[in-house]
Amino acid sequence: MPDQPARDPSEKLLFTPGPLTTSATVKAAMMRDAGSWHWEFNETVAHVREEILRVAGVRREDGYEAILVQGSGTYGLEAVVCSAVPRDAKLLVAVNGAYGARIVHMAEVLGIETVAVTCAEDETPDPQAVANALADDEGIAVACVVHCETTTGILNPIAEIGRAVKDADRMYFVDAMSSFGAMEIDLRGIGVDYLVSSANKCIEGVPGFSFVIARRQALLDTEGSARSLSLDLLAQLRGFEKNGQFRFTPPTHAILAFDQALRELAEEGGPPGRGARYRANHETLINGMRELGFREFLPPEHQSYIITSFCYPEHPAFEFDRFYRGLADRGFIIYPGKLTETDCFRVGTIGRIFPYDIRRLLAAIGEALGEMGVPVPVSRAVA
Amino acid sequence: MPDQPARDPSEKLLFTPGPLTTSATVKAAMMRDAGSWHWEFNETVAHVREEILRVAGVRREDGYEAILVQGSGTYGLEAVVCSAVPRDAKLLVAVNGAYGARIVHMAEVLGIETVAVTCAEDETPDPQAVANALADDEGIAVACVVHCETTTGILNPIAEIGRAVKDADRMYFVDAMSSFGAMEIDLRGIGVDYLVSSANKCIEGVPGFSFVIARRQALLDTEGSARSLSLDLLAQLRGFEKNGQFRFTPPTHAILAFDQALRELAEEGGPPGRGARYRANHETLINGMRELGFREFLPPEHQSYIITSFCYPEHPAFEFDRFYRGLADRGFIIYPGKLTETDCFRVGTIGRIFPYDIRRLLAAIGEALGEMGVPVPVSRAVA
Repeated sequence: MPDQPARDPSEKLLFTPGPLTTSATVKAAMMRDAGSWHWEFNETVAHVREEILRVAGVRREDGYEAILVQGSGTYGLEAVVCSAVPRDAKLLVAVNGAYGARIVHMAEVLGIETVAVTCAEDETPDPQAVANALADDEGIAVACVVHCETTTGILNPIAEIGRAVKDADRMYFVDAMSSFGAMEIDLRGIGVDYLVSSANKCIEGVPGFSFVIARRQALLDTEGSARSLSLDLLAQLRGFEKNGQFRFTPPTHAILAFDQALRELAEEGGPPGRGARYRANHETLINGMRELGFREFLPPEHQSYIITSFCYPEHPAFEFDRFYRGLADRGFIIYPGKLTETDCFRVGTIGRIFPYDIRRLLAAIGEALGEMGVPVPVSRAVA
Repeated sequence: MPDQPARDPSEKLLFTPGPLTTSATVKAAMMRDAGSWHWEFNETVAHVREEILRVAGVRREDGYEAILVQGSGTYGLEAVVCSAVPRDAKLLVAVNGAYGARIVHMAEVLGIETVAVTCAEDETPDPQAVANALADDEGIAVACVVHCETTTGILNPIAEIGRAVKDADRMYFVDAMSSFGAMEIDLRGIGVDYLVSSANKCIEGVPGFSFVIARRQALLDTEGSARSLSLDLLAQLRGFEKNGQFRFTPPTHAILAFDQALRELAEEGGPPGRGARYRANHETLINGMRELGFREFLPPEHQSYIITSFCYPEHPAFEFDRFYRGLADRGFIIYPGKLTETDCFRVGTIGRIFPYDIRRLLAAIGEALGEMGVPVPVSRAVA
């Protein structure tokens, strides 16, 4: 595993939940214009769809399909919600952050009744609570959970919740936006019917589309449910099957980049290799931040290696905006705000970044604190 | 006006309704990763939104807004349809091709009742028929027409239809997907409330998003109408106004490319300059195709300079698939099929292509016909 990348040292690096830093070779794949109806591009799309399944550890022969959806990750989620929940049926969502809450809101806008099983941001949803909610309401057709809630960086127990959903014989939908490609997910073992991720997360492509891995039979059974033309997941699948093409203009350059990104994922050893680098990034970050006196928001047993929330230090000179700008001036972009209820900032450890980059980020954090007059190690806020 | 471009001569050129050939400098703008929450990128988004209005010849002070929507052009259309038609109101669509018909289908999927004013593919919608339909049905809130129907390449009379719509005091929605940026459209004079186009048409960016120019007050009045979260146009506007950001991850690279494409549009003299090049492309094409014996599908008075449909030649040796491959082998991609009811193929004359490229295409067409054993000039099919 390389400790540092080959790249232009003046490039600003992204330590965010996405868009992420991508490799120069992924970006270089965008330097040509492909005809979206031409057979060469159709072959690329077919290859990308096969490769997504390979990364997922499933095959078309096992009854899975990979379907690309133009737009951001949220569009992919809405494609599932608006297509997979039958008319007059309900959607259950386990909520412990902004992304779970967004799925509830999305379903409500679509006129779909929802049941939210909610817990605190620093706790994981209780599979038994999901089981109880499903037992209480036969109208719930689909249950949904976010794998890694990037609001905080918490990792939710998708296998245990899946067991509750499958025991109740409902459809299971996992939002694996920021985990797929790095964390291994046993779709068949867990009984996942729909999984959504995005081009610009752990596969390290550029943003422009999301993708859904669907159990083919589950999707075929949704005939007539779609509440949108653009986001009709079954129609999108049928488009690919009819002539290998998207129904509507695809982001051709982003797909060429993704094809290259999939190649680089394979070269890194697939999800285990990529996960190992991200884990090394995360460990470097956590250790360095602890040395600087910072405290993580989440208990270690719930913490993912995807993104980490750190509590603001307890010092009157600490101002988040100045801190953010101090890092940006040094070429490091973190997320410029908070989504959590507690005062936290987030640092992502995914994308084309390496432990070497994390060490540079840590040095910049020390400098930015010094600039503000916040002594290091910082005083830890008491939760 | 340059007659030929500076580019790699081995590059395949696209003579399609999109995706199109873009300049090397537009593609090169994608060689960095921007943080979508970072102020630098927000400034680019703000600049792009201002520039779109400038190309449209309207200003924010006049009450117009430019709103970017992730996804293809169809997503932008659906954003307007699902947001701008009040609950329980109807949408009128003037239909003379596949793209008008798609808007009808889209509205139906969204549960919106439609009134289609339909005419033949080689005729333009009658403004009086639109006026009559509006007079007959007070439930119609919004009327819609496609400016250039790329099914055939026909140019529809948006000013005359606009007069009928405004006389009836309804909202007016123009799908200017393939015309905006090259053909001048007098939004204020015509009374356009919503106009949709895409990054990858006459502005010559890469595909990945569309944009809506909306009359601000019309859009504000739609509060509560949106039938989708991702495609909620008013919420998207409010997102930009709140913090300059997209609500959901934008295709950052495609937006950087678009920013460069807008610069190159200005350098070419804005829509008049770009329109002049496309017109020269089209004239070179028409004259050359006529010399080869081809006949256009449309009468000249309805023909746009965006894309042109040619009738298949009447010769038993002509096979469209072989013809398409013969051109592709020579580096020229046309649309690999037909959308019209009549046997036609289409050749686009937009994108980063020049009369020099059209002459090379014409030579390739002659060669491909010779290869099939179709004598030149070809016999014109009788309509």
